[in-house]
Amino acid sequence: MTSGLRDAGDVRRWDEECDVAVLGLGAAGAAAALEAGRAGADTLVLERAGGGGGTSAMSGGVLYLGGGTALQRACGFEDSPEAMFAYLMASSGESPDEAKMRLYCEGSVAHYDWLVEQGVPFKPVFYHGCSGEPPTDDGLVWSGSERVHPFCEIAAPAPRGHVPKMEHQAGPLLMQTLCQAVEKSPARIATNHRGVALVQERDGRIAGLVAESFGEERAIRARRGVVLTTGGFINDDEMIAAHQPLVRRCSFRVGAEGDDGSGIRLGMAAGAAAIHMDAASISLPVTQPWGLKRGILIDASGQRFISEDSYYGRLGEWALFHHDGRAWLVVDDAVFEKPEYPREVAAVGETPAELERELRLPEGSLEATLSLYNRHAERGCDPVFHKSGEYVQPLVKPPFGAFDCTTEGSLYAAFTLGGLRTDVDGRVQDVAGEVIPGLFGAGRATSGLAVGSYSSGLSLGDGTFFGRRAGRCAARG
Amino acid sequence: MTSGLRDAGDVRRWDEECDVAVLGLGAAGAAAALEAGRAGADTLVLERAGGGGGTSAMSGGVLYLGGGTALQRACGFEDSPEAMFAYLMASSGESPDEAKMRLYCEGSVAHYDWLVEQGVPFKPVFYHGCSGEPPTDDGLVWSGSERVHPFCEIAAPAPRGHVPKMEHQAGPLLMQTLCQAVEKSPARIATNHRGVALVQERDGRIAGLVAESFGEERAIRARRGVVLTTGGFINDDEMIAAHQPLVRRCSFRVGAEGDDGSGIRLGMAAGAAAIHMDAASISLPVTQPWGLKRGILIDASGQRFISEDSYYGRLGEWALFHHDGRAWLVVDDAVFEKPEYPREVAAVGETPAELERELRLPEGSLEATLSLYNRHAERGCDPVFHKSGEYVQPLVKPPFGAFDCTTEGSLYAAFTLGGLRTDVDGRVQDVAGEVIPGLFGAGRATSGLAVGSYSSGLSLGDGTFFGRRAGRCAARG
Repeated sequence: MTSGLRDAGDVRRWDEECDVAVLGLGAAGAAAALEAGRAGADTLVLERAGGGGGTSAMSGGVLYLGGGTALQRACGFEDSPEAMFAYLMASSGESPDEAKMRLYCEGSVAHYDWLVEQGVPFKPVFYHGCSGEPPTDDGLVWSGSERVHPFCEIAAPAPRGHVPKMEHQAGPLLMQTLCQAVEKSPARIATNHRGVALVQERDGRIAGLVAESFGEERAIRARRGVVLTTGGFINDDEMIAAHQPLVRRCSFRVGAEGDDGSGIRLGMAAGAAAIHMDAASISLPVTQPWGLKRGILIDASGQRFISEDSYYGRLGEWALFHHDGRAWLVVDDAVFEKPEYPREVAAVGETPAELERELRLPEGSLEATLSLYNRHAERGCDPVFHKSGEYVQPLVKPPFGAFDCTTEGSLYAAFTLGGLRTDVDGRVQDVAGEVIPGLFGAGRATSGLAVGSYSSGLSLGDGTFFGRRAGRCAARG
Repeated sequence: MTSGLRDAGDVRRWDEECDVAVLGLGAAGAAAALEAGRAGADTLVLERAGGGGGTSAMSGGVLYLGGGTALQRACGFEDSPEAMFAYLMASSGESPDEAKMRLYCEGSVAHYDWLVEQGVPFKPVFYHGCSGEPPTDDGLVWSGSERVHPFCEIAAPAPRGHVPKMEHQAGPLLMQTLCQAVEKSPARIATNHRGVALVQERDGRIAGLVAESFGEERAIRARRGVVLTTGGFINDDEMIAAHQPLVRRCSFRVGAEGDDGSGIRLGMAAGAAAIHMDAASISLPVTQPWGLKRGILIDASGQRFISEDSYYGRLGEWALFHHDGRAWLVVDDAVFEKPEYPREVAAVGETPAELERELRLPEGSLEATLSLYNRHAERGCDPVFHKSGEYVQPLVKPPFGAFDCTTEGSLYAAFTLGGLRTDVDGRVQDVAGEVIPGLFGAGRATSGLAVGSYSSGLSLGDGTFFGRRAGRCAARG
C-alpha cells in the first residue's frame, strides 16, 4: 500500500469505533459533525491541534451568502438566487462547478438561518466602509466584484458578505460558536489527533482511518464514512511548487499550520482525484481606502491591466498570474490617501515622465497610459477597463506618486482553492470519476465553488454548506 | 480497489510474463523498450492502437537538443550544456525540474548520437526559414525563444531544433525508425492492447498490469517494472475541464486518440502524484512568415502584451492564459504579408482610429499603442517589450489591417505538459514523494522538462531521453 493508505486486512484491532469520523475541526468539519450527529450517526471529530478552529478561526469570518437572506432583507437589500448564481458563475474563475453553484445559491437563505440557529450572531447593519472584512461589528458588507464591470451588467448587484458580530476579525467568534455547538451536540471531539492514513477494504470502501496522537497510532473504525475537512495546502512547499509555483512570490500565506495538504494527500493515496490544484485566492488589498480606486494600477510595461475597482481577490490574481507579479498603484496629489495597509512609496515625480523614470518603466509608457486614461476621465468614463464612473477622475495634479503593491513584504495574501473532487453531497470521486465508498470531503481540502477570482466568504460559505451535506450523506452510510 | 487498480491477490493467473512491460509505443515507449531490452530485460511493449507511433508520429518530429551536438557543429553553431541549461531554466515556465534539466543538457550530445545510432537520419543543413517545423528536409532549426529578450541576455543563443531528414513533417519518419529499431531489438510488441489497470502487491509494489485486447482482459506480469508511456490528456474532456479549462477554447488539440490521460489515471489510481497539470503548450503560429513579426500583437484592451518575435509556443500561452484568449496581429501596408496559416482579416482601416473602430476596441486604445510603438520604432527600438531591432519599423503606411489570431478556427494548438511525478530515472512518486516500487513513467504521461512557455522539441526530447533512463532503471528492477 502507498503511504497514507492501509489495508483493512492489516488492522489487527480498532482502537475506537464510530459511524462517521470527521477529520479536522474547522468550519467545514464543524458543519459536517453537526449534521452527521443530528442525523443520528455516532460521530467522532478528530483535530490535530489542541483545539478546534483551524484556519477558519484565523479568518475574517465572512460568509458569502445571498439570494435574499434575512440579513440582506433587514439591511434593505434585495437579492435573488438567480442573481447570485449569475454573478458567481461569471466571476469565480474558468469552469466553476455549476451543480454545486446552483445548489449553493438556492440553499443560501436557509443556510444563513441554520448558522443563526447554531448561535452565530449577525448584526443587521450594513457596513458602508471599504473592506471585505469590516473593522466594525456590522453584519453585511460588499465582499466581491458585484458592482464592477462586467459583473454589474450580468447580474443585479447585492452585498453578500455576511459577517458575524465581532469587531475587526470575526473568524474566532464564528468558530467559537460552531465549536461550542459541536460540543453541545452528540458528536465526540478528540483533539491532538492527526490523520496519517485512511484504511481501505479490498473492495475499495474506506473503513476508517489511522490517527496519530502523542506519538501513538490509533486505528479508528468509521462504519459509515470518513469526512476529510483538513483544509488546503498553502503551507506545503512541495505541493505549492508542484501546483502553483507563482504563489511562492506572495508574502503572506493565509492558513493555519494544518493547511499542509495532508487530507488531500490521504484522499489521493486512496485513489481520489484532485482538481483545479492551480487555483488560488490571491488578495491584493491595495485600493483601501476605496478612494485609492481613483488611482490606476499598472504593470511593468507601464500599462493598466484591470479595472481598479475590482475586488482585491481579483486584483491579486491578475497581478500575480497574468502580469508577472508586478504592480504599482499610480496616484496624483488629488487622489492621494494613506493606504490602509503599509505600502512602500516606490517613487514620486513632478510629472508623469519623471515618475516613469523613477520607476524605471519603459520610456513613454506611463505617459501614454495616463494620457489615454485622462482623455477619457475628463468625460468621466473608462472605456478601456470600465472602472465605475465614481472612481474616474483625471490624474493631473502634481506631484505624482506610485505605491509598489507587490514587492516582498507587501500584503499579497494567498490560499489554495483546489483539492479533492467531490460531488454535491461531498462524496469523494476517484480519477475515473467514480465515488470512493465511505469517503467524503468538504472545505478547502476539496475543490469548491470558486476556482479563481475570489470573492471573500466563499470558502467559509461552501465549507459550511457542503460540509453539512457531506455530514448528512456520510451519516446515511 | 479503485477502478484502474487490481490487487495482486485477485489475479488468478498471469496470461503473460515479462521483466519489463512498457505501456504505449510512442517516442518515450520506444526509447524505454530499446534500453530495457539492451539491459537484458525480457521486455514487452503494449500499444493500444494497431501499430506504434502515437502522437509522436503525428508531430513535426523536432527534438530539442543541444550543448554542441554533432549536428550543431556540422551546421557551424557553437553551443554548450551551460547555455542550453540557462536558456531552458529561464524559458520553460515557473519552477521547472532543475535536476532533470541539468541531466538533460549534460546528456544531450550523447543522446543525439544515440538517436543516430538507432537509425534516425539528420541532414547537416541549417534551415534559414521561419518555422519550428521546416517544410524542407533540413536538420537544424530555431525552435524556441533563444534570440528573444530576455533569454538572449541570459544565455548565448543557438538553434536546438533537431529535425529528422523528411520534408514537411518528420514525426512519421522518427517513429518509423524508432519502431523498426524496437522490432529488431529483443523486445516483443503487442498491439491492440490497452492498459486498463495496474496490479499492485499488498506492499505497494506494482506487479504487472491488466490489458484489454479485442474485448478480453489479459493479466500481464512484469517482474521488474511497468513503464507508463501513454501520452498526455489533451483528448480527455473531463481532465481538461478539471485542470486547464481555458484550453477548451483552442481550436486544435494536438494528440493521437490515445492522449486521453489513461496512463496518468492508472498511475494515480495506484497513488501516484500528478503535478503541473495546468501546464500546456499553446501554439499560436501567427508571425509566420517571420516578416509578420514586424506587426504588433494586441489584446482586447488594444494594448500590446508580448514581444512579437517570441516563439509561437510563448505567444499562444500569453494570449490564452494571460489575455483572455483574444489577440490580433496589427500590420500596416508596408509589413503586410500573407500569413502562412489561414487567418481571418478581422478589419482594415485607412487610419489607426478607423481600424480601432472596426475592431470595436476601446476608443483611443490602439491609437495610443501604435503611437508609442512608432515613437520608439523610429529609432529602431522597442523598450516596452524588447522586440529585436530587425523586426522593428514604424507602422505608418495605410491601409492598416488586423488578423484575428484567436477566433474559433484559428490554429491555436494545444497539448498538455503535466503528468505523473517522476524522478530523473523515471521512477513514479506517490503523493508523499515516495517511489512506488515497480512503476516508471516517461513522456507526456509525466511532468517533464517544460512546465510552460514551450520550445518545440522538448516533448520528443525529454520523452526519448527520460524514456531511455526509465527503461534502464526498470530493467534493473
